[in-house]
Amino acid sequence: MFQSFEVTARPEQGPPRLAALRAELAAERLDGFLIPRADAHQGEYVAPHDERLAWLTGFTGSAGFCAALWDVAGVFVDGRYRTQVKAQVAQEFTPVPWPEVKLGGWLKEQLPEGGTVGFDPWLHTPGQIAEVEKALEGSGVVLRACANLVDRIWENQPPPPMQPAKAHPIEFAGETSAAKRGRLAQRLKEAGHRSAVITLPDSHNWLLNIRGSDIPRNPVAHGFAVLHDSGAVDLFMAEAKLKGLEEHLGDAVTVHAPERFLEHLDRLEGPVRIEKQTVPVIVAERLGDRAVWGDDPCALPKACKNEAEIAGSAAAHLRDGAALCELLAWLDAQTPGSLTETQVVSQLEVARRKDNALQDISFETIAGTGPNGAIMHYRVTEETDSRLEDGHLLVLDSGGQYLDGTTDITRTIAIGTPPEEARAAFTRVLAGMIAMSRLRWPEGLAGCHIEAIGRMPLWLAGQDFDHGLGHGVGAYLSVHEGPQRLSRISDVALQPGMILSNEPGYYREGAFGIRIENLLVVRKAPALPGGDAHRAMLHWETLSFAPIDRRLIEPALLEPAAVEWLNRYHAEVVEKIGPRVSPATKLWLDNATAPL
Amino acid sequence: MFQSFEVTARPEQGPPRLAALRAELAAERLDGFLIPRADAHQGEYVAPHDERLAWLTGFTGSAGFCAALWDVAGVFVDGRYRTQVKAQVAQEFTPVPWPEVKLGGWLKEQLPEGGTVGFDPWLHTPGQIAEVEKALEGSGVVLRACANLVDRIWENQPPPPMQPAKAHPIEFAGETSAAKRGRLAQRLKEAGHRSAVITLPDSHNWLLNIRGSDIPRNPVAHGFAVLHDSGAVDLFMAEAKLKGLEEHLGDAVTVHAPERFLEHLDRLEGPVRIEKQTVPVIVAERLGDRAVWGDDPCALPKACKNEAEIAGSAAAHLRDGAALCELLAWLDAQTPGSLTETQVVSQLEVARRKDNALQDISFETIAGTGPNGAIMHYRVTEETDSRLEDGHLLVLDSGGQYLDGTTDITRTIAIGTPPEEARAAFTRVLAGMIAMSRLRWPEGLAGCHIEAIGRMPLWLAGQDFDHGLGHGVGAYLSVHEGPQRLSRISDVALQPGMILSNEPGYYREGAFGIRIENLLVVRKAPALPGGDAHRAMLHWETLSFAPIDRRLIEPALLEPAAVEWLNRYHAEVVEKIGPRVSPATKLWLDNATAPL
Repeated sequence: MFQSFEVTARPEQGPPRLAALRAELAAERLDGFLIPRADAHQGEYVAPHDERLAWLTGFTGSAGFCAALWDVAGVFVDGRYRTQVKAQVAQEFTPVPWPEVKLGGWLKEQLPEGGTVGFDPWLHTPGQIAEVEKALEGSGVVLRACANLVDRIWENQPPPPMQPAKAHPIEFAGETSAAKRGRLAQRLKEAGHRSAVITLPDSHNWLLNIRGSDIPRNPVAHGFAVLHDSGAVDLFMAEAKLKGLEEHLGDAVTVHAPERFLEHLDRLEGPVRIEKQTVPVIVAERLGDRAVWGDDPCALPKACKNEAEIAGSAAAHLRDGAALCELLAWLDAQTPGSLTETQVVSQLEVARRKDNALQDISFETIAGTGPNGAIMHYRVTEETDSRLEDGHLLVLDSGGQYLDGTTDITRTIAIGTPPEEARAAFTRVLAGMIAMSRLRWPEGLAGCHIEAIGRMPLWLAGQDFDHGLGHGVGAYLSVHEGPQRLSRISDVALQPGMILSNEPGYYREGAFGIRIENLLVVRKAPALPGGDAHRAMLHWETLSFAPIDRRLIEPALLEPAAVEWLNRYHAEVVEKIGPRVSPATKLWLDNATAPL
Repeated sequence: MFQSFEVTARPEQGPPRLAALRAELAAERLDGFLIPRADAHQGEYVAPHDERLAWLTGFTGSAGFCAALWDVAGVFVDGRYRTQVKAQVAQEFTPVPWPEVKLGGWLKEQLPEGGTVGFDPWLHTPGQIAEVEKALEGSGVVLRACANLVDRIWENQPPPPMQPAKAHPIEFAGETSAAKRGRLAQRLKEAGHRSAVITLPDSHNWLLNIRGSDIPRNPVAHGFAVLHDSGAVDLFMAEAKLKGLEEHLGDAVTVHAPERFLEHLDRLEGPVRIEKQTVPVIVAERLGDRAVWGDDPCALPKACKNEAEIAGSAAAHLRDGAALCELLAWLDAQTPGSLTETQVVSQLEVARRKDNALQDISFETIAGTGPNGAIMHYRVTEETDSRLEDGHLLVLDSGGQYLDGTTDITRTIAIGTPPEEARAAFTRVLAGMIAMSRLRWPEGLAGCHIEAIGRMPLWLAGQDFDHGLGHGVGAYLSVHEGPQRLSRISDVALQPGMILSNEPGYYREGAFGIRIENLLVVRKAPALPGGDAHRAMLHWETLSFAPIDRRLIEPALLEPAAVEWLNRYHAEVVEKIGPRVSPATKLWLDNATAPL
């Protein structure tokens, strides 16, 4: 099994570890040390080696940090984790509501003038440090880069991940690494940059057409890379990971031990491009005035998938959709009250694993029934595991990693007979999801310009939800990928080939949650008769196929064009998924996709 | 009459004036001089005194500039004026497509190294000059501030405007000038600024609760002001304009002759706030390092109208709507082919002037029939005046200035029987206009986040239009007012009290144009049963009332909620406007507003 439901926190382990850390503070003449939930690659998942925050404090959330001072150890967590943190950390730790309380202001209050706080310069970005230092201005409190004090006291710290990398075949990648390196080098030249340092694993894995398994859920091999304006690459990755890949990488890619990365930076001639939001402070400082800020050169090209990647993603989605339909058919055959959330998660994983193509799930499945569905990032544990009762909505958000693509799909399922208001809200969420799916828009617009289309039906009823409408998704890479987003804060123009999720939701605390999510790919829209011939427009092609629960739809609340879209979508679901499922599931599917 | 249809350009006058200007270039040892269509206040309209561009070149458009060099005199005009400029200027002038061709690049091509181009530092902003200088970097061509060479050669140049200002009564202003100055001074203090220089007339007119008539269409008195963090104001405006206003202005406002403005700047202690996009270069340079860039302190407070201003605007709109309905009823009684555009404009002005409250029209009426309707900023002249033929659409965009408010309304009217495709496009434009009118949205969003709502019906048909969905409107001030806009480039959060236009359109070149425009005011939205109680939301209150041409609507293309909105709107039109029109017009109105 990929997913466990263990309650991993052991609050009682925290206090002795905190005491040991404070002894190190004394040795270093520091007044505090920062422990982020991050590694040197600023990804969403970290290897066990980098789970310093959880090891020290007990808190296992996917974001947050600890500021351990002499008298107080603040654990900064966002709104998602306010309840969880209380259960996971001992009273020696003080939960701090973040980002409402900012680290700089908090340090200023806690520390006297002259206070010095240490941090590991591999685990923080220049932007993060600059923000804290700005807040500390005039207070006499300063930050100081130092060795990682947690690593010093962590006996039996797991070693850094060392999983073998593998070549990503051209049939899925669609473009050779040499071709990618050539066109990116050309753009570096045009920008007048001699090289770019690439610290994000999904960026250099994409560039080199390799994948790995150094961390869960994201199929990447950790390392650092320097792309030169010649198209050559220096790759800093343990040779052990790259065995057998010599030919695949070719002569233009030189492999070095990761330990040589910093000294290699000294030899680079400027300007060297680095990315402010993700590069470790130590890299920026080592480059000094040879560094120039700029985008990760891989980010945008990687986001714009080529036809092979889109075809791969479409194929992965059919495979994944069939597995989800098997689960949904099975689920509908159970009596309300007979199942719990973990059973659904496990059964879904069984369905996905039946196809040997599954490499991993693409994130921890969210299966929240009734009130748990209203917790946006709910991850079921043995302790929270709840029974699917009559009248519940079940939010089921999951995905798979396949060699040909990454999936992410959410369906909300009626358990027995849910209340009227839940059906009305479901229909509004669906109306927004359909409005976005149907959209055509002029080239040049970004997520911030069109996100409202997917929210409007909720807005008109005085409702809304507190997450973005959608995020970028990789091609057998991260399930959350930039720079494209369907969000009011995203001004990156949407471009053909970008894959995004379209996932409006609605959450009523203590009662129910709703989310409906398909992945879509941006395509050039064909001209329409009577349309403006001179106007280049884009539209969506849907990748995800699985029924949307008709029992939760209030047809009177859907406009005719939306009903028509849904009926056409369901017909396509039967056509594409029908041949891939068991006879029993096919019967269920025919019923679940009947026209509205 | 306010509006004339004269063809004001006389191309033959240009060449001798250009020759005289070149003689001045020689005297000043310059290689060129810039003549913008601007005054020191960067407004949309300029006084005859400031019509230097038209006087020199013959070009009368509302935007553009001339760069007069020894061998060539480029007249830079945007897409709206490409045809007009050719008819208005002599062959000694060279039309330049702008902003495709930028001034800096053009100068670099035209001039040798060491070339020097003069400009009047009152008529350009630091941002404009910096942009040109950046483009000139390395070319050896430089800009140099100098006296205005056109003023030197312009015999009989009209004097600067000197119209009397008047007090804007508290019943319309809703807040005393002292109160406004007090709260703005407080914000200056909070920002650590000692004073702010205010060069936009609508800003200091708003601040001091005065109005004027120095320029057409915008009821403002020209001058400059300095707001101090004490709440005191130094006002640089000819005393002759301010006769009788001593008591109204009060002790905290000190009036100085405009000629003393620059030397007064020398006495200000920094930091002094100035606004980069509108301040004259000479002001910024005179302040030197005492200047800090910031928003005009009046801009946002002025945009958020108080209850008296909103009530005034609503009253002005009823008065104005009644006049428009008289015109529309009259128009419908004419035979297709019997009227021309100028007759419509004149008749509309007659209708508006019947009410003595009208102070001015708020801009030149746009009345474009048939193909002329597709010219977005069409202004009819004797030469272009066209007959309203059977099958035409007439775009009629107009507004009035009243003491209690400023109006701006567009209706598109069927002449005889327009073609099917025009009716379909009209219905889509209307669908977008209604979708925006019906919107509710969470507080904090800007125009860029919601503009798509008003375009979506066109987008779905492969159509769009090339102007913003809406602009801010003043309270008996400019009909185009910032900082709020319904546009993809506006990130200013919409706030209660802001008045904006909602004016989607569609333009088919050579065939027809469509635009439907109401003014709306942002209001806090009341809670809805079943809505999220914790969520602060905003919505629109419509200010404009006049029928939307039912003969152009294809009901099958409107969703039921839109039809319902339209029927409710039309019922309100009858209720509000019916009692204000003649019996004949009331009959017409009843018919024009019958439920769909």
